[in-house]
Formats: sequence, structure tokens, C-alpha cells
Amino acid sequence: MVSKADFKGKHFISMSDYGRPQLDYILNVADEMAKLEKQGSQLARGKVLASLFMEPSTRTRLSFESAMFRLSGSVTTVADPMTSSIKKGETLEDTIRTVMNYVDIIAMRHPDNDSATRAAKVSTVPFINGGSGTWEHPTQTLLDLHCMRTAKGRIDGLTIGMVGDLKNGRTVHSLLKALRNYDVKVYCVAPDALKMKPEVIEEVKDRIEVTEVSDLPRTMPELDVVYMTRVQRERFATQEEYDKVKDSYIMDRKMVQKHGKKDVAIMHPLPRVNEINTDVDDLPNAWYFRQMKHGIYTRMAIIALALGVY
Amino acid sequence: MVSKADFKGKHFISMSDYGRPQLDYILNVADEMAKLEKQGSQLARGKVLASLFMEPSTRTRLSFESAMFRLSGSVTTVADPMTSSIKKGETLEDTIRTVMNYVDIIAMRHPDNDSATRAAKVSTVPFINGGSGTWEHPTQTLLDLHCMRTAKGRIDGLTIGMVGDLKNGRTVHSLLKALRNYDVKVYCVAPDALKMKPEVIEEVKDRIEVTEVSDLPRTMPELDVVYMTRVQRERFATQEEYDKVKDSYIMDRKMVQKHGKKDVAIMHPLPRVNEINTDVDDLPNAWYFRQMKHGIYTRMAIIALALGVY
Amino acid sequence: MVSKADFKGKHFISMSDYGRPQLDYILNVADEMAKLEKQGSQLARGKVLASLFMEPSTRTRLSFESAMFRLSGSVTTVADPMTSSIKKGETLEDTIRTVMNYVDIIAMRHPDNDSATRAAKVSTVPFINGGSGTWEHPTQTLLDLHCMRTAKGRIDGLTIGMVGDLKNGRTVHSLLKALRNYDVKVYCVAPDALKMKPEVIEEVKDRIEVTEVSDLPRTMPELDVVYMTRVQRERFATQEEYDKVKDSYIMDRKMVQKHGKKDVAIMHPLPRVNEINTDVDDLPNAWYFRQMKHGIYTRMAIIALALGVY
Repeated sequence: MVSKADFKGKHFISMSDYGRPQLDYILNVADEMAKLEKQGSQLARGKVLASLFMEPSTRTRLSFESAMFRLSGSVTTVADPMTSSIKKGETLEDTIRTVMNYVDIIAMRHPDNDSATRAAKVSTVPFINGGSGTWEHPTQTLLDLHCMRTAKGRIDGLTIGMVGDLKNGRTVHSLLKALRNYDVKVYCVAPDALKMKPEVIEEVKDRIEVTEVSDLPRTMPELDVVYMTRVQRERFATQEEYDKVKDSYIMDRKMVQKHGKKDVAIMHPLPRVNEINTDVDDLPNAWYFRQMKHGIYTRMAIIALALGVY
Repeated sequence: MVSKADFKGKHFISMSDYGRPQLDYILNVADEMAKLEKQGSQLARGKVLASLFMEPSTRTRLSFESAMFRLSGSVTTVADPMTSSIKKGETLEDTIRTVMNYVDIIAMRHPDNDSATRAAKVSTVPFINGGSGTWEHPTQTLLDLHCMRTAKGRIDGLTIGMVGDLKNGRTVHSLLKALRNYDVKVYCVAPDALKMKPEVIEEVKDRIEVTEVSDLPRTMPELDVVYMTRVQRERFATQEEYDKVKDSYIMDRKMVQKHGKKDVAIMHPLPRVNEINTDVDDLPNAWYFRQMKHGIYTRMAIIALALGVY
Repeated sequence: MVSKADFKGKHFISMSDYGRPQLDYILNVADEMAKLEKQGSQLARGKVLASLFMEPSTRTRLSFESAMFRLSGSVTTVADPMTSSIKKGETLEDTIRTVMNYVDIIAMRHPDNDSATRAAKVSTVPFINGGSGTWEHPTQTLLDLHCMRTAKGRIDGLTIGMVGDLKNGRTVHSLLKALRNYDVKVYCVAPDALKMKPEVIEEVKDRIEVTEVSDLPRTMPELDVVYMTRVQRERFATQEEYDKVKDSYIMDRKMVQKHGKKDVAIMHPLPRVNEINTDVDDLPNAWYFRQMKHGIYTRMAIIALALGVY
């Protein structure tokens, strides 16, 4: 049986550390947090979060900070790519060993892949991975799962399409790995140049059915959830190659209404550029902005559980 | 009759949206806030303000943040000229649609003239214009009015001088437009090259008497309030032209004591450079530092009214 | 008799303003704060600290901010080397005269030696020097004293070694001056090129015994406390000169265990680079990370005393 004790004082660094019972537990706590977010909560009163963003990510930073404020906690922020101590030659480990004396919990975004593991190793206060290079961004995955579950009432039984650049996107890799814990069908919809990394598919295919396709309109009718990502020009060798595919992975009102199920949920980790047309924004299918709210709920859950105050 | 209901959940983007009854209402609430600022207030406990400064303005940012703290609220800050999401190509509208999921109220400074209008259009939480390009800076005008009313006990009946660069100053334009709601006489005291914009005078002259002059010492004896602004070298075509006028618009102790009324109030939006000599600082007529305090009171008022917690 | 009244509403700018009775009083209050840090305290509820860091210092900034949060106060931060108003030509005095209208207390780090004195002169709210150029960093010295007293149970009677670059280090100068108030013996352990400034020794030698040496292993057995500092390559005229001494001032496990007293306390103002080997980190003698916690306790003490809320 999973219980609070499994999270109290613990770090949160990788989705790989959590199986289905843990995920269910966290997402259920996030449901409770959705209520508290409205009512106001004193759970973390007197507690301090260090919000260390050694790589800029305004969205994730503000989400962590607001989550802490919703629990009545305080936040001390480092939003510089390079803090002064690092400039003086301090190791990441020493930075953490210092900061942990100031606060009750640390959330960190860092450009290095091994940063979260290294930080967690020395921290005596709970350490939350707010994105470590291209390795993991586990709170993003949690919010995606929670949004999906809220939008569709469940995750089991869903057919989920991931669309766009599946090769380079950290969020789709993490999400696919997490979906391994659910009874779902996944379509990876991408041009040849941007197909889902084979090793990620390898990791999940014993548990879930993953189908790789390249045609969005033909796949669209199957999907309960569409998880869009950006197709960036820089990812292609030539302009010609890019031009050939760029319009094939754009979600617009016509795509939703002509090819999609009536209640298909459109998600996106944001920021979007043009891969979702603004004419989708006021459709009930548009979940990508509401999705952000689930970042508050899930981060409140992770913070409250790690602090042992829930 | 104006009531709280007229402000609850509403945006605050332009002084043009407010007539005399609304201004009186807000300034009266600011009087109450002056008391609460000392006693402490729990009005915004549990509420979160996003303080988005896409253009640096330490003074205005700190004033908004302190105002929120005085109401026991929390603040999450973006103080970078360019946030990471904007760099990735996100529109202002999408930034607001994201941030509004995290907080209860947004205050934003932005270099674009249409930024406040665009943001307010999509925001489902109250949006406060903290300065939008050269278009409007309405909370500055509110604090100027509240300081003036406090310094002189009233605004009606006053003779007010605006001095210096009246052509380029956003604050004097907004203040003059707001004064249209009061029974005042205004002197615009400026060199030819920096005269008040004709279209602003045009906008107010049906309601208030505006006199354009260029001689400060001769106008000084008439004035109850002097609103100083900077005369910047860059605004002149030649050094010669600048040198001719630069010393004519400097307020010093002699100017106050030889030419001014005994209780003339000297104001300035700050920062000053040399247009007010430091020998004025300890005269009782110097209101320009105390003026900043009124930024706290009026911003507390706007925040509390918009949140519907007052 | 020293009492709270001696600190209420007062600035905290230089260690020279405090004799032994004042130091004892502050350090005793810091002991109380160590308890409150765990229990939580409401002492500064409703109060606002301006954390002005015109020179980057993440460590000191976060420490001040966490100290304020531990007292349930709020913090508004300027972490830019140059704030926008300063860019516009505002004097430091005017910046302070503005900010003091927004907050109850100011902590500032500034690159200029005379900054703290100038700021304190105009501020009508308590002003705390968070480091002013190479002049003073008094809260660092307080935390060093409090850590030392905690590590060894007392300061009187101790033999203290300061090691490394004693010529350029602001922290060792301040610490030595402060130790003048105690009954201690001090060894200054440094290469010829980096010896303690003669004028600092001159200032304290009437009260305490200071011995200048260059050999760490031979001095080590005498020491109850070792205060390490960095020996930087840039401080030497030639690489050869640097190479000759660099390894002589490195603290490693062997140095502690072979030459040191069993309970010698190793301290360091941090960040360290390689002058303390990581193999010392898990020895009970390593106090340099715990030392940071004393920055919270002493800054809580200074803030609470200056606000008059303790």
C-alpha cells in the first residue's frame, strides 16, 4: 500500500521511480490540491522553497512558486542562468549543500542531464527535479497525466496521439514512459526525420501498443487525446525537407472539427508557436492553457508530500 | 453610485476609463489603505500577484510588490526584459493565458503601447497596466493625484504647474488628462522645443484652463503644486539649444523660497537627476520622496478592489 | 546594560560599532532564533524587507531572504547589478529615499566601499549592510562568530588559525577585528605574498596575541578553529610563485587527522574551490556547510532586533 510515508522527506527526480500505485496516489493528492487551490491552504505555512533556475524557464518557475504560495509557503528565487557562486568555481554539490541550510525544500532547473541526480545525492532537504537537461522533467509529465485524467475522466482505455517532433522532445519521451503504467494505445505521429526515439519505444512496447505513423488527418479519428509539440525548422537538414512536412503537423479548427472525435482533447506543453492555430483556442477541445493549471495542482501535491505536511 | 462592484474582477488599463466619481472612490479607498499599511492587513491573504516586468522599472515593480505584501498576499516576479517563453516565439496573449492559470491578479510593464489592451482582452483574472510603452501608466497618475490631494487637502481649486519636458513625458500627459476631472488651473511651463503636446491640451481644454508659458520664476508665485520632470540633453537638436534652456527649469531652494508660495508642494515622478537640487530635499515643500508612499496606497487600493477583497 | 532598545530602529553597518556586550547580546538572540527557525515564528508578520543586491551574491541574498521568511515577513528583491533607476542617473541616496517608502527594513549589497554609510545616512528605516565593497561585511562576521561559539561552546580561550589569502580577504579582516573583543590567540597562516594586512594587525594587537606564520602543518596542532580562505592564482605575480605555495594551504583529510586536534573545527566563508578537499566533507570537523545555517540565525536576530519585534 502506498502512503504519505513513501513521499515524506523524499526527493522527486525521475518518473522511473514511480509505478502505477505511486502515480495514482500522487494524482489523487493533486485532485485534493485542486480544491485547496480555490479555498486556500495553510499546509506549508512557515516553510521556504528555494526556486533555483540555472536555466531560464519562466513558465515552470512561476508554476512552482505559485504552487508554494497556494500552500502559504515562502519562496526564495535564483533566476539567473549562472549564479554568482557558480561563477566563482563552486560545484553544484556545494551550491546544494549551502542552499539546503536556508530552506525546507529545493526545486531546481539545470542544463546538465545529471544535475538532478547529483543534487539529490547531497541534499538533506527534499529535492525536486524541475527539469535536468534533456534527461527528465518529471513534474511536466505529472501535470500532463493529471490534465489528461481530468479532461477524459480516466487514462486507462484512452487512445493518445503524440504529434510533431517526437525525436527531440523531452516531454513526449517522459510522457510515453509514464503511460507504460496505463492501459492505453499510443500513436506516434511524426515525419520520418522526427520519429520517436527507438529506445523509448523499446522501453515501453512490452506494456503498451505503440503505432508509428506519419499522417495526422488519417490518425486523428482514432484519438481521444492529441499531444502536440513544435516542429522546429532547425531540426531539418534542408529548407526543402522542412517545407515538405511543416504543414502536415499543424492543428487547426478544421483538423479538429473535420477529423477529430467530438470530445478529443488537444494538449501542448507550451509555448506554442504556430503548430496550433489560434482558431482552436476557443473550442472546448482546447486543453493546452487549462493544462497549465494542472501544473499548480501536481506541484502543490509533490511539495506537500515531500514536506510531509499533507 | 460607484461601488466596489464596479471594480471587482475588472482590469485597470487606462485613466480614460474613469470619471470623477470613480477617481474619488479609488482615492478614498487609498486613504483607507494608508491606515491599513500601518496596521497591517489580511485582505489578500492566500492571493498571488504575478509581477511581470518585461521592461525594467525597479521603482514601479517594488511598489506593486510591496503593495501586495501589505495586503498579506504573495508575489511571483518576472523581472527580465525578455522572458524565456517570449524568446521561444510565444505571443503576449499566450503568455497571459498561461500566467492567469497560476495567479489571482497580474500587473505588467511592457514596452509596447498596445500591450495592456491586448493582455486585458485575454486575461480571465484582473489585469493591471503597470506602464505600456508611451501609451499609459495609469497607476502613476493615481499616485500623483493621491499625493496632491494629501499634500493640499484637496485637488479642486488648485493651480498646478507642470515643468520641464512636457512633450515626451508619459506621466505629465496622463496627469493632465486626469486633471480634466477636477476644477483646476494648469500652467504648462516648458521651453519651446519641449512644449506640451497640442493634442493633449486639445483633449482637456473644454474642461480646464491650461496656460502655456516658458518662464518658471514668473509663474512660480501662482502655483500650489509644481510637478517637475527631467529636461534631457538628448531631446535637443544642438548642445547650444540645450544650454540655452537647461538652467531655466531647475528647482532649487532659492526658487522655492524666493518665488514660491509658502506651502507650495514640489512633486516629481522620479528618478530625478539634477532638475531638483538636493538643497530642496529637506524643505517641507519637498513631496517627491513621500510621493512614492502614495504609490503603495493607491496600488493597494487597485489590487484590493480588483480582487474584490475590500 | 545592553537591551533591545539599543537595536530597535537602528542601522547595522559596521562591526566597529559593537563592543563585547553588544556582540554577546546579538549572539544570544541568535541562539533564540535557532530555536524559532525550527518552530516557526510570526515575529515579522506583515513586515517587508527590501533585498537590494547591486552586486551579485546569491548566497548572502538567499540567506537574508530566508531569514526574513523564517520570521514570517515578506521580501521584495532587486538582484540586478544595475537597477533601472541607477541607469537613469539616480544617486544611491535617492534610491534609498525611494525604497524606504515601500518597506520596513533594507538589506543591501553594493560594490562601493562607502555605500552602506551613505545609505544609512538617509534611510528612515533600519538599513543592514549586506557587504559594501571591500570595506565591511558585518553579517558575515556575526555568522562566523556564532558558528565558532556553537562549534566550540565558547569563543574565549580559543586558538584560531586564519589560513590562505589574508591580504585580500574582507571576511578575515572583519573577523580579526571582531575577535579583538574576545580572549583568543590568533595564528595568521599565509605565504609571504598574502600576509595579513599590517594595519589590521596593528588595530588588534593591543588586545589579542596575533602570530604570523607560513607553515600550516606545524601550526595545525595548536588550533581549535581553522578558518580557511581561497588562495587565488590571480593574486600572484608569476605562475612560479603561485605553484610554490598553492599546495601548502590546502586542507585535506590527512591534514585534519594527522596534524589537527581531534575536535578542531574547520570553517570557510564559501564558496570553496579546492582549498578544502572534498574528503574532509564528511568528517565531524567540517563546519563550513553548517556554518551557513548560522547566517540564518544571526540575520534573523539582526532583522528582528532592528524591526523592534523581538
